[in-house]
Amino acid sequence: MILTVTLNTALDLTYRVPALVPHTSHRVDHSAERPGGKGVNVARVLAALGHETVVTGFAGGPTGERLRELLAPVPRLTDALVTTEAPTRRTVAVVDAAAGDTTQFNEAGAPVTPAEWAAFRARYTDLLSGARAVALCGSLPPGVHVGAYAELIRTARGAGVPVLLDTSGEPLRRGIAARPDVVKPNADELAGLTGSRDPRRAALDARRRGAHAVVASLGPDGLLAATPDGLWRAAPPAPVHGNPTGAGDSAVAALLAGLAAATPWPARLTEAAALSAATVASPVAGEYDPAVLADLLPKVTVTREDDTA
Amino acid sequence: MILTVTLNTALDLTYRVPALVPHTSHRVDHSAERPGGKGVNVARVLAALGHETVVTGFAGGPTGERLRELLAPVPRLTDALVTTEAPTRRTVAVVDAAAGDTTQFNEAGAPVTPAEWAAFRARYTDLLSGARAVALCGSLPPGVHVGAYAELIRTARGAGVPVLLDTSGEPLRRGIAARPDVVKPNADELAGLTGSRDPRRAALDARRRGAHAVVASLGPDGLLAATPDGLWRAAPPAPVHGNPTGAGDSAVAALLAGLAAATPWPARLTEAAALSAATVASPVAGEYDPAVLADLLPKVTVTREDDTA
Repeated sequence: MILTVTLNTALDLTYRVPALVPHTSHRVDHSAERPGGKGVNVARVLAALGHETVVTGFAGGPTGERLRELLAPVPRLTDALVTTEAPTRRTVAVVDAAAGDTTQFNEAGAPVTPAEWAAFRARYTDLLSGARAVALCGSLPPGVHVGAYAELIRTARGAGVPVLLDTSGEPLRRGIAARPDVVKPNADELAGLTGSRDPRRAALDARRRGAHAVVASLGPDGLLAATPDGLWRAAPPAPVHGNPTGAGDSAVAALLAGLAAATPWPARLTEAAALSAATVASPVAGEYDPAVLADLLPKVTVTREDDTA
Repeated sequence: MILTVTLNTALDLTYRVPALVPHTSHRVDHSAERPGGKGVNVARVLAALGHETVVTGFAGGPTGERLRELLAPVPRLTDALVTTEAPTRRTVAVVDAAAGDTTQFNEAGAPVTPAEWAAFRARYTDLLSGARAVALCGSLPPGVHVGAYAELIRTARGAGVPVLLDTSGEPLRRGIAARPDVVKPNADELAGLTGSRDPRRAALDARRRGAHAVVASLGPDGLLAATPDGLWRAAPPAPVHGNPTGAGDSAVAALLAGLAAATPWPARLTEAAALSAATVASPVAGEYDPAVLADLLPKVTVTREDDTA
């Protein structure tokens, strides 16, 4: 199986309103609840692609129970979340139907206790024994130390399980130093890490900091990968229009499946670029359009670039 | 005991953000969960005033469980809510710390089934046997017929329990025709019912439609009451500044306690005007400041007006 870790899960609420007018009252036309957090999104995409997938991390309270209820019917997805005393946080995305845009509110969440963190580490170590690859995804909740991802990467490497890291800020900086197999920053995260807005220069720099491979997601420009096999660019034939929510998580899902199967980099990047674009094309945030995926797979171009720094 | 009915309960979320900027992402500085719905708010105020209070209506799903968890520790408040299959709706109030203003999002909620409505009516009839007064508060959820409040008023009158109605639109129009003891519209609800923006004319008109007494809440102008004992105005000595959220519910709580004790109208209105103003003065929405209440009680002026139409 493939394992994904989401320490800061969320119950994602989407509210559609005719038009968002600050300082007034709105009746929500349509509301939806989804299980959320980056690793949970990655796991749902992997399961939809046909992979046996296990989700771990934390969930608690009525919001955590609801999250687990929403995960339960997903085929090929197993819930191995650790229960916390504190309730799982919520996020609210208010979709303005007139503007076609979204306003986002993210709760901070309550602290994880030392006992819960210890219980998670034991669960994680146990799950690694059956995992072909693991992804560590998203922000850290309050109560978890900033070097947590570095610690979890070392544990995975000790168990011989390839590990992908998708986070930002100081947890990314510390995590990279623990030598993960892949990191998947976006352009902002890469610039925050390296100080450079030149993706090529920044990806090569991030690789020198310890990551075996760095795959930067550059929105409509596709992916840029600094790998042991060279520097590659992968992009769909033309920019895809739609909702970019979840496109990065879909790229992670494809990269993780490729990591588990040790697929050569050009094939891995083709799948990641096509799946990411197929997610942008889907009207439902975070889901991919299988027809668009099938159409794009043979059309993605992967080119090798000069990787001398 | 005093009974309050909230057919459309809600789990009320309050999110404080530094400044609301549409179409961007916000980290919520501070979030709070409260049990919500007008009758629930009224019950919490009554319980805080020292009255044994019972809450009925509907609650379901993880949001309903959370609402009940939040009600459980409230002294003198008993939960007699009927469990629904569908989850209780949420409301989200986004408080803009810079502007000091609120943007509100209200979920519509899921339909109540015919079996759940039948179970509620049986519970309500049972509870009336021990009630000194009952308040029917707020909007109707999907699945409940528009004449529901009229039906519940007739049941209360049949049981000899005085009944207060606080709703709006067609449920108010139909409810008034069933001859409740008190209705408590605000200025907008009164204008919607009668077509008149003149509160005196509208209150007398609403009384002719069937209500034994009409108490209109007029914001900083206090209360205007058309009663069997004449037309009265009650107001604090000066407008109180603060957060008006819940001021109307506090007025209902005082009016309901007065109805249960058959307090003379001038005393009832004094308590309602003072409690409403003490709620505006409290920094926490929906709670009253006991010191402000004690200070205002002797200062509220109640004046009798000419009630010839």
